[in-house]
Amino acid sequence: MSHNTFGHLFRVTTWGESHGPAIGCVVDGCPPGLPISAAEIQAELDRRRPGQSRYTTQRREPDEVRILSGVFEDDETGGLVTTGTPIALQIDNVDQRSKDYSEIRDRYRPGHADYTYDAKYGLRDYRGGGRSSARETAMRVAAGAIARKLLPGVSIRGALVSIGEIDIDRAAWDWDVVEKNPFFCPDPQTAERWATYLDGIRKAGSSVGAVVEVVAEGVPVGLGAPVYGKLDQDLAAAMMSINAVKGVEIGAGFEAARLRGEENADAMRAGPDGRPVFLSNRAGGILGGISTGQPIVVRFAVKPTSSLLVPVQGITRRGENVDIVTKGRHDPCVGIRAVPVGEAMLAIVLADHYLRHRAQTGSESTSRT
Amino acid sequence: MSHNTFGHLFRVTTWGESHGPAIGCVVDGCPPGLPISAAEIQAELDRRRPGQSRYTTQRREPDEVRILSGVFEDDETGGLVTTGTPIALQIDNVDQRSKDYSEIRDRYRPGHADYTYDAKYGLRDYRGGGRSSARETAMRVAAGAIARKLLPGVSIRGALVSIGEIDIDRAAWDWDVVEKNPFFCPDPQTAERWATYLDGIRKAGSSVGAVVEVVAEGVPVGLGAPVYGKLDQDLAAAMMSINAVKGVEIGAGFEAARLRGEENADAMRAGPDGRPVFLSNRAGGILGGISTGQPIVVRFAVKPTSSLLVPVQGITRRGENVDIVTKGRHDPCVGIRAVPVGEAMLAIVLADHYLRHRAQTGSESTSRT
Amino acid sequence: MSHNTFGHLFRVTTWGESHGPAIGCVVDGCPPGLPISAAEIQAELDRRRPGQSRYTTQRREPDEVRILSGVFEDDETGGLVTTGTPIALQIDNVDQRSKDYSEIRDRYRPGHADYTYDAKYGLRDYRGGGRSSARETAMRVAAGAIARKLLPGVSIRGALVSIGEIDIDRAAWDWDVVEKNPFFCPDPQTAERWATYLDGIRKAGSSVGAVVEVVAEGVPVGLGAPVYGKLDQDLAAAMMSINAVKGVEIGAGFEAARLRGEENADAMRAGPDGRPVFLSNRAGGILGGISTGQPIVVRFAVKPTSSLLVPVQGITRRGENVDIVTKGRHDPCVGIRAVPVGEAMLAIVLADHYLRHRAQTGSESTSRT
Amino acid sequence: MSHNTFGHLFRVTTWGESHGPAIGCVVDGCPPGLPISAAEIQAELDRRRPGQSRYTTQRREPDEVRILSGVFEDDETGGLVTTGTPIALQIDNVDQRSKDYSEIRDRYRPGHADYTYDAKYGLRDYRGGGRSSARETAMRVAAGAIARKLLPGVSIRGALVSIGEIDIDRAAWDWDVVEKNPFFCPDPQTAERWATYLDGIRKAGSSVGAVVEVVAEGVPVGLGAPVYGKLDQDLAAAMMSINAVKGVEIGAGFEAARLRGEENADAMRAGPDGRPVFLSNRAGGILGGISTGQPIVVRFAVKPTSSLLVPVQGITRRGENVDIVTKGRHDPCVGIRAVPVGEAMLAIVLADHYLRHRAQTGSESTSRT
Repeated sequence: MSHNTFGHLFRVTTWGESHGPAIGCVVDGCPPGLPISAAEIQAELDRRRPGQSRYTTQRREPDEVRILSGVFEDDETGGLVTTGTPIALQIDNVDQRSKDYSEIRDRYRPGHADYTYDAKYGLRDYRGGGRSSARETAMRVAAGAIARKLLPGVSIRGALVSIGEIDIDRAAWDWDVVEKNPFFCPDPQTAERWATYLDGIRKAGSSVGAVVEVVAEGVPVGLGAPVYGKLDQDLAAAMMSINAVKGVEIGAGFEAARLRGEENADAMRAGPDGRPVFLSNRAGGILGGISTGQPIVVRFAVKPTSSLLVPVQGITRRGENVDIVTKGRHDPCVGIRAVPVGEAMLAIVLADHYLRHRAQTGSESTSRT
Repeated sequence: MSHNTFGHLFRVTTWGESHGPAIGCVVDGCPPGLPISAAEIQAELDRRRPGQSRYTTQRREPDEVRILSGVFEDDETGGLVTTGTPIALQIDNVDQRSKDYSEIRDRYRPGHADYTYDAKYGLRDYRGGGRSSARETAMRVAAGAIARKLLPGVSIRGALVSIGEIDIDRAAWDWDVVEKNPFFCPDPQTAERWATYLDGIRKAGSSVGAVVEVVAEGVPVGLGAPVYGKLDQDLAAAMMSINAVKGVEIGAGFEAARLRGEENADAMRAGPDGRPVFLSNRAGGILGGISTGQPIVVRFAVKPTSSLLVPVQGITRRGENVDIVTKGRHDPCVGIRAVPVGEAMLAIVLADHYLRHRAQTGSESTSRT
Repeated sequence: MSHNTFGHLFRVTTWGESHGPAIGCVVDGCPPGLPISAAEIQAELDRRRPGQSRYTTQRREPDEVRILSGVFEDDETGGLVTTGTPIALQIDNVDQRSKDYSEIRDRYRPGHADYTYDAKYGLRDYRGGGRSSARETAMRVAAGAIARKLLPGVSIRGALVSIGEIDIDRAAWDWDVVEKNPFFCPDPQTAERWATYLDGIRKAGSSVGAVVEVVAEGVPVGLGAPVYGKLDQDLAAAMMSINAVKGVEIGAGFEAARLRGEENADAMRAGPDGRPVFLSNRAGGILGGISTGQPIVVRFAVKPTSSLLVPVQGITRRGENVDIVTKGRHDPCVGIRAVPVGEAMLAIVLADHYLRHRAQTGSESTSRT
Repeated sequence: MSHNTFGHLFRVTTWGESHGPAIGCVVDGCPPGLPISAAEIQAELDRRRPGQSRYTTQRREPDEVRILSGVFEDDETGGLVTTGTPIALQIDNVDQRSKDYSEIRDRYRPGHADYTYDAKYGLRDYRGGGRSSARETAMRVAAGAIARKLLPGVSIRGALVSIGEIDIDRAAWDWDVVEKNPFFCPDPQTAERWATYLDGIRKAGSSVGAVVEVVAEGVPVGLGAPVYGKLDQDLAAAMMSINAVKGVEIGAGFEAARLRGEENADAMRAGPDGRPVFLSNRAGGILGGISTGQPIVVRFAVKPTSSLLVPVQGITRRGENVDIVTKGRHDPCVGIRAVPVGEAMLAIVLADHYLRHRAQTGSESTSRT
């Protein structure tokens, strides 16, 4: 049992607080021989890095990752490859403003983990949220970059599908658009609407929630295992473990509860090789906890951050009523930066199940649809 | 890593197929000295048992549970108490109609795990769905009955909050009504509407989805641990592992994604003892992955069963197109029987976290709100 | 974390007390498609069964095993094969004499777990030792029979190498002799000496310790993983978990502590295929925690049973001094029946590491020496 | 399942290679509120540090530890205390001589893990043994220093009880002597003999094995759990996981196999409080896998290092026969520095079981003998 480890065979252990000297992770169980470079990991981290637009926190962290173990130069290429031993990654915390934390220290901010940490542990590192800070998710993205290397042929992408009340137009979905706006929005017109909308939120000192959708294509048939090793079970855990997430759904999700059986079951026709071609994907690529070969589709709801300039009723550690306003640098919509985090968690779950599948069935190259 | 075990310190391992000789579970890690009886476990099982109304499958299983280990007579009371050793529970499969399975055997039913099991394992026990049958959930309910014993003062209840397009009227919620209709419906008028609606579904040989809500009251503050031992992470996994579940949400859930920060954050006022009184519970009783002392509220979406008299396009193992009609005894709304299963999983997660909390903080009697 | 589960990917969970209705186990993680029959498992159990000679306990248990899940008839052969789902095995307890346990109930027998169970749990099932009875090891043997199926080409055998002060003559080692005497003795002359010696022990109402050696031949190179997944680490845990075991050694074991480096290091010469041929095997087939392809050699020391007709000083639960004599049916040398148990644990560890190796390296058919 | 993590509730994950930039560990599950300082950890590390006498390797590593997370200043004392979040410890590798490794790179040294790593992973970091280097044990000692903090009232000490053929005189055992000679020898006269003996070994370019004994006093009754959570099972795993260890025994160990039941069972008399006083400790403080309250006594055999100036027959990666001489800085008796490592592993196992016990029984302050 581990509080700070995710995964079974591809295991990611993270450590570090928002305002400690560094944050880091250890990736254990990664197979040997995978080419890997700090630059590749950095590329993923840069997608999550704060301070890239006015819609995310202005904390300026270069988030420069170092690989401290588990790699070695390849005899042939001279590049780094994994050795099968644990891979330690580390990012130094740089932009820790030496601000006065006395306010946060004695206050329980509504919607934050201040009260629950104190109630559980009797103390907490209150600087910037300490361990409960979303800063921890940087290490998920770093570990996810390694997980992706384990899944050749699998494409893992994510997008934001709603901010507050404004949903994207699914008919206009264009993956090429996603990296070309500050919202990971797959639809250029919605991106424009979000810009105006979020400017208003930001100026009001408020925040708003969002829904993220992550998709894996090219996933082999057969990942996941009944009944407590289901792929969707682990995906639900993975996404719900991300800060501020309050809901997870697979494929049709909550909408499936409204449908009739014949509407919801994805019909099949025999493909040229005799294997099924699915005529729809309301299952989100998973049946009985096992991947079907169709795209894995996961959505999760991110609540609005509770760090606000708008005052909210809270209390102090000593039990006094106060109105709480959170100064400092914050995200008007933390859901935006959750997109690469969701992708990373999807990659980590798939990598883990890929190894689990290989252990139980020995099949190296499970067929793909 | 375990495919068929749920939990870390309170561990439930289930085994068995729908049409094998028996199903069972082993509960490991249960503390010693808890009074337990087969009758108490049976009472929970009876709530889930099929064939109790025309709205659930007509399979008639007495589901009589036996305790095979881990209990002993108490010196003082003479009743059974747990000993701290593994508790084995078992239910014999009785109503296994000796029907002809040749149709199912060679067909991949849409929306079922037939194809994915075959693709993963190369073979499957096709009789009644084998391991993928919802019959496995009987053992969750049995284990949940033991988990409840570990949580004195905690009340765990569940209800169905929507069937298909028909939602309950939350203003009319009455827990006393829940056990008095065949739907675990908390609102008598909706129960009547569902009766009519489901009769139509059943006669049409169709099925429909549902949403279940489970609630735990009296939960101590402090259960759950950052960052991969979050209470909501484990609840998401627990619910998503139930057959046919496609979505899970905590508190405001997906609705939170539509709110502003000041709308979503639950305001606090100092209570008479200086501890917070929350003015709302959009967090669903969990902040930063740790229980707040407010009610834990979890909802999950159950898809309509894919066993239908309405034909759906499927294929055979040999890759031929067929229209598939599932004869036999099935649930028009499997969501109904998922209510006690959801309660059981909630109990199991809380019991597990209760032990985890005790290990890490040593605190026996965490304060309750 | 699990108190009653052994293994990581090939996982064995046992349950049951000596005098409860049954004992059983669940084997999880076993790959699909392995032919298996109750008869094969029974054959291993029969080797361990008590009451087969006057040198083991006279408790007469048929120890008839049933397979309750996880197998299905193979399409082609019609025989049973594993399906990849959990395999539940069960043995009913038959010979539970309805004797008066009032003596044991209130007494802490020296050398037994009576006191420690009571001190830990506050109560215990005292009948026949309850959960601390060696009866639990029957399920290890049953699970080990399945583990063996996973290891084609690997031969796992064991022998008793000393009883009390009398060691075998290693020069006379003959595997064919092992199953032809009641001691699993590999040397016919020592077997005769042991017979006389143990008759004396038995008549004196005493008992004596023994050393077991188990050997696996044909093990692939590469099983085991640095640094806390070492093959020898898991073997040490496996053997030490067997009742009454007080020491474990690999290869030269404690003798290695007396040697010089050049005496201990197994020299290598290049074989015809360029791979190493080892000129000795003081390493016991393991270097750096990873199998070398040489035979794995493990020895473990079994203490004499503390159930004696010779009186030993003990106390009662109420803290009174008493002289304790254990009536009933017991083994003068429990080490004898530990031989098949040690083999089973060796098989289970190797099966587990075989799956772990397959997960991390993907190599299905690791080369053998 | 984890290759590089030890423990269940008190979990230690180590990473790093001998000649990479750093080595480190993450301690997860440590309770909050324990006062801890880098100086305390450093004090333990200094006991293991190489280069302190001519009897250990001349590699000069300051082994300066940094705490990177999981601690925070205490409100009251201002000192550091644990927060309940993961504690990351790190030591930079300093003395990595930029030597030519081309010889080691292409050779399989007898008695080393060179061949098995290559066979398993297809590549290895050959510099200084990479991950198989005993350098990893520094992190065990660091983590062990934290584990000790969890065990107030428990004294954990170790000593070397034999080097090669020369055993200590147990009658002369004096714990005060242990830290006053370069061998952790509890007996001053044997220390002198060892000095002369090891000078000879060192000058001959040879090495020799040793036996370490570690003892924990003041351990509460009740730690450990049947049947696969036995305290001795985990101790066996812990010690066998240390580099070069080939055997482990508890209490009387292998000697118990030579005894009769009445000689081996530790007799008990009722103490003044009615609890047992044991008249001997052949059990080594453990009965039925559970601590008795007597001292826990564990011994382990350390083989001689295989890094020798004396040539031994080996082969190259290309399959050529060579005589191998290992130049560089090595320990004539690696067993010496294994003493603090053994103590650390004992502390880690006890801390883990302390938390496990607390989880299952809720008993905070188990009584001590």
